Amino acid sequence: MLSVNEAIGTLLENCEQLVDSEQVSLMEATGRTLANDVVAPIDVPPADNSAMDGYAIRYADWKGTDTAIPLSQRITAGSVPGKLAEGSAARIFTGAEVPEGADTVVMQEHCSEEAGAVRILKLPVERANIRRRGQDLATGQTVLTAGHRLRSQDLGLAASLGFAEISVYRRLKVAVMSTGDELREPGEAIQPGQIYNSNRYTMKSQLETWGFEVIDLGVARDEHEAVRDMMSQAAGEADVVVTSGGVSVGEEDHVKAVVEELGAINLWKIAVKPGKPFAFGQVCGTPFIGLPGNPVSVFVTMLVIARPYLFACQGNADTGVHAVRQIARFSKKASQREDYLRVRSLDDGVQLFTNQSSGVLYSTSWGDGLVRQAVGEEVREGEPVDFLPFALFN
Amino acid sequence: MLSVNEAIGTLLENCEQLVDSEQVSLMEATGRTLANDVVAPIDVPPADNSAMDGYAIRYADWKGTDTAIPLSQRITAGSVPGKLAEGSAARIFTGAEVPEGADTVVMQEHCSEEAGAVRILKLPVERANIRRRGQDLATGQTVLTAGHRLRSQDLGLAASLGFAEISVYRRLKVAVMSTGDELREPGEAIQPGQIYNSNRYTMKSQLETWGFEVIDLGVARDEHEAVRDMMSQAAGEADVVVTSGGVSVGEEDHVKAVVEELGAINLWKIAVKPGKPFAFGQVCGTPFIGLPGNPVSVFVTMLVIARPYLFACQGNADTGVHAVRQIARFSKKASQREDYLRVRSLDDGVQLFTNQSSGVLYSTSWGDGLVRQAVGEEVREGEPVDFLPFALFN
Repeated sequence: MLSVNEAIGTLLENCEQLVDSEQVSLMEATGRTLANDVVAPIDVPPADNSAMDGYAIRYADWKGTDTAIPLSQRITAGSVPGKLAEGSAARIFTGAEVPEGADTVVMQEHCSEEAGAVRILKLPVERANIRRRGQDLATGQTVLTAGHRLRSQDLGLAASLGFAEISVYRRLKVAVMSTGDELREPGEAIQPGQIYNSNRYTMKSQLETWGFEVIDLGVARDEHEAVRDMMSQAAGEADVVVTSGGVSVGEEDHVKAVVEELGAINLWKIAVKPGKPFAFGQVCGTPFIGLPGNPVSVFVTMLVIARPYLFACQGNADTGVHAVRQIARFSKKASQREDYLRVRSLDDGVQLFTNQSSGVLYSTSWGDGLVRQAVGEEVREGEPVDFLPFALFN
Repeated sequence: MLSVNEAIGTLLENCEQLVDSEQVSLMEATGRTLANDVVAPIDVPPADNSAMDGYAIRYADWKGTDTAIPLSQRITAGSVPGKLAEGSAARIFTGAEVPEGADTVVMQEHCSEEAGAVRILKLPVERANIRRRGQDLATGQTVLTAGHRLRSQDLGLAASLGFAEISVYRRLKVAVMSTGDELREPGEAIQPGQIYNSNRYTMKSQLETWGFEVIDLGVARDEHEAVRDMMSQAAGEADVVVTSGGVSVGEEDHVKAVVEELGAINLWKIAVKPGKPFAFGQVCGTPFIGLPGNPVSVFVTMLVIARPYLFACQGNADTGVHAVRQIARFSKKASQREDYLRVRSLDDGVQLFTNQSSGVLYSTSWGDGLVRQAVGEEVREGEPVDFLPFALFN
């Protein structure tokens, strides 16, 4: 059996990263992946400015608390200051440009203004209260690198450099489909022998959360031809095809036969729980990932195994998630497979959901993350374990 | 000065939670907040089904490995089985309904089929390989509660119960505006004295990530009337008005004067760094939050102080974020304010960005989270600290 890391490694080796990029408005760029480095075209801030409401002076002009310095100008944020006249002070506000000739800003609480002059009652250190030109960013500095997935603060940073648009990879197109004649859609009446389709909703939502363009093909009938038609369509439209169910070796599992016919398939036995059967291959030249059919297996293998591959295809430089250490509030024997346990955070550690069956999707809704139990590792109550909050995968 | 927790507590006490709800398609419900409990109308699975491809038998019918049991039916997933004829077995596939009369499924790898009969070479325990009716969810069980923010797996769970639509609170409408004559929009030419507006982009992206409807009003000129017009408009359209900048006591800070004129304002000194000046009040009866003007202060106070309030207004039951413990790879003296330090995760702990000035937005892009340093707490290299990954706030 493959280890989880070997499986991810093989997927990443076989990944063809998108190359097409597009310019998008900064306002629409959250969650998109940078196609080029962002290099600062200007200094930020572009000039020295005042960190306070107060008075800008030449430090050497101060002659003591009793000597008023005449005011020569008033500089509001956004206005253009003149050079500071010798022996004078300027009234200045937060964010306003510090005039040439001034070297220090005194906060207004330490000053007394009267009759067009200011007395400085408490002198700060020389050069105080000035935000220096280029303090945040210097011209020519690489501030964001290609492959970075843009977060709110990154948009703010790019805006501070004057970029109204930004170059990102186009969205990865991921086709999702399920198989199974037992599946009915929510809202339909359910008959004996049938169940409601849940994987479609989980998978589509996960893929959209990750910023992909989802081609949602629904469910193919359990018939070779129906599966073949849908998979051909998926391969024609998408960058990657993802299926749930139908990839074990059973005679009713048509996905495997169809992928063999249209391309190539490798059935992997990955030492992971939940989620053992996992397939990787290509359909008409389009990469193909076959997830297991059980709802929890779909959810977990999508997060742990498919996500790094899809992120890499999208051009993301960072495909992994850093586990954090939390205290286990439960014990569990060592296992031969890497086990992803559904847990919930409490103030004193993480609690295990009682039923870890791969059919019990409720465990994932009840919980807020996974404990990763390595092969052969015993979990002991009160000791730290690797915890992966679901939110870290978003 | 208020502590951060006191400030959040006061905000939550003064929160008016949305009551309007709407039905949305499950396909569009990611990130929305449930307005009602979701109660299971059916058992999941709705009937006993097979966990394997194999053979369904009555356990008592097994007479040893040499005695073949005749096959009486073939049950694929989605088909309706007949009652199992006495003394017979049924071929059955994963997910297919177990016929009445059968009590055990034998996996196909432990069977040998020939001439319309099956020999069972290895008998499992009685009742093996059957997913029991109601194993995941039982009719009448509350599976999701009002106030829950829906994630991918929750949509799958609701789908498994047959819900095509779900009742959620309408999106909270949040108006955002900034003030400052020095601000230019990205794409425009910058003149002396001016800087690019970054807060607008950071704030809008944060609010959208949280699922709110953003009313983006841009920048008001630093004039009483311009600020008043924009704030009246904001109050008329939004559930909450959020501003950045303009709430300190300076004579160029018009937001404070306008809010006093149109409603009421409390200026809070919160013992938080970055982000001391923070205002809360109402404008024409609409709640108002005034964030500081510095880019890092805006980003941090939005996450730490505004977010819990906005989440509560939206109807979210869970407004907080669980910190995780990570090892500090730096030391820092105790401070009189709760300090939110920009850090980056490494394999052996978290590293501090060198410049923690509230003007240096780059620290938030460089980092992947915040270390929360409590008032009076010293950070010592090699010891654990409270770490808040940015992703946990999404």
